Amino acid sequence: MQSFADLLRLAKQYEKELPPSPIKATPPHGAEIAGWIDHTLLKPEATLHQVKQLCAEARQHKFASVCVNPVFVHLASGLLSGSQIPVCAVVGFPLGASLPTSKALETLTCLEGGAREIDMVLHIGALKAEAYGQIYNEITAVVQVAHNQSALVKVIIETALLNRFEKIIACLLSKAAGADFVKTSTGFAAAGATVEDVDLMYRVVGPETKVKAAGGIRTYQDAMAMIEAGAQRIGASAGVSIVGEANKIHEQQE
Amino acid sequence: MQSFADLLRLAKQYEKELPPSPIKATPPHGAEIAGWIDHTLLKPEATLHQVKQLCAEARQHKFASVCVNPVFVHLASGLLSGSQIPVCAVVGFPLGASLPTSKALETLTCLEGGAREIDMVLHIGALKAEAYGQIYNEITAVVQVAHNQSALVKVIIETALLNRFEKIIACLLSKAAGADFVKTSTGFAAAGATVEDVDLMYRVVGPETKVKAAGGIRTYQDAMAMIEAGAQRIGASAGVSIVGEANKIHEQQE
Repeated sequence: MQSFADLLRLAKQYEKELPPSPIKATPPHGAEIAGWIDHTLLKPEATLHQVKQLCAEARQHKFASVCVNPVFVHLASGLLSGSQIPVCAVVGFPLGASLPTSKALETLTCLEGGAREIDMVLHIGALKAEAYGQIYNEITAVVQVAHNQSALVKVIIETALLNRFEKIIACLLSKAAGADFVKTSTGFAAAGATVEDVDLMYRVVGPETKVKAAGGIRTYQDAMAMIEAGAQRIGASAGVSIVGEANKIHEQQE
Repeated sequence: MQSFADLLRLAKQYEKELPPSPIKATPPHGAEIAGWIDHTLLKPEATLHQVKQLCAEARQHKFASVCVNPVFVHLASGLLSGSQIPVCAVVGFPLGASLPTSKALETLTCLEGGAREIDMVLHIGALKAEAYGQIYNEITAVVQVAHNQSALVKVIIETALLNRFEKIIACLLSKAAGADFVKTSTGFAAAGATVEDVDLMYRVVGPETKVKAAGGIRTYQDAMAMIEAGAQRIGASAGVSIVGEANKIHEQQE
């Protein structure tokens, strides 16, 4: 990797002026958008019954993944068996304030339960304290465990709590540590994804590292705006209604 | 322990009519209230600098404990060394949706870092699905690890997400599993502690098992109302200002 000094220099340069946005993937057409959505259920009171419904919906609409808390990874993996739809598990979620050891072990346990994607929250307080080595190390720990089993890692930076420089350096550290995606938000902070943040993140890490927009994305219009800004994955609990809207708009256009 | 059938029968009986409130401890006088407060900093963007301040305040006012996320347990333990003030760590926090294995390992890691109290969140979705065995087992796992090192366990039931019956059975399961306290809230749900919930919880588990009230307790008046309802511990980030108010009221009375 580049040295931390190089990353810091780059972050300071990007803080003044972002690089141009790299070429983007062709946006999905109509209901194809389902393949861009992580079908998500993370509220603490979610039940087994609701996870069953989530997985049935994922099979029906062919969502990109089903995103659940660790307690439901094993169940969801079983329910999605043979469907090609991966289970995405959240780790250190939603505060990012568990220890790196816990994040790495939680990742391993989720992979053992069948997860193929890991959405981890970085330690926001360490980022604010400029403890960049700590951030790099915790991401690397999770990435090594996950990549060892060919699973993807998305690093949640929680944009609502960060200033512009912190967003940039968080993205650069995630990319340097080998993350597959950077992700805007947990959905549990005061605000979620914005078009501006997705644009910034994609300019900083794209196109090799991808961007996932999550938090507050409730409509087809919301989702398409994020995709046009550079997002290649959308985290949403409103996936079914977003696909419904996509179908309706598609029909009207024909 | 009693059988689950016995616990369920008891919960149904309590749902109709709660037992009378057991005798309560003598409430604190003036600034003595500090000894009832877990001085708390759990926001995800908390920094090392803020934890240092938290620990200095705890030494000054002699709070019951300092309550932090796992990432800061080791730091806080060092800072409080020799002070008799224990570090309280949150586990499976705040969603309670990490696996029992993760909760038990996180407990062990926090104890190794010097924590003497563990505030764990139970799996709310399992409670709602009436998977009482799961709840009992995860609490037992954490309690065994903690009690083995003479640390206390508080079980957070997140009252804002529960109906009356769920609150009662959560308390009975926690007590049966050997928890030292039941705690109302994480402070991250839509609502925090209420006097009614503290009263209910103390009637169900007291006086052997204690009650911690947390979430939204910002004034001396709030804290005293919880104590009068049966709370023997208060979780608050406003500890310093609560003690300030207590001193002022105490002076006026003399």
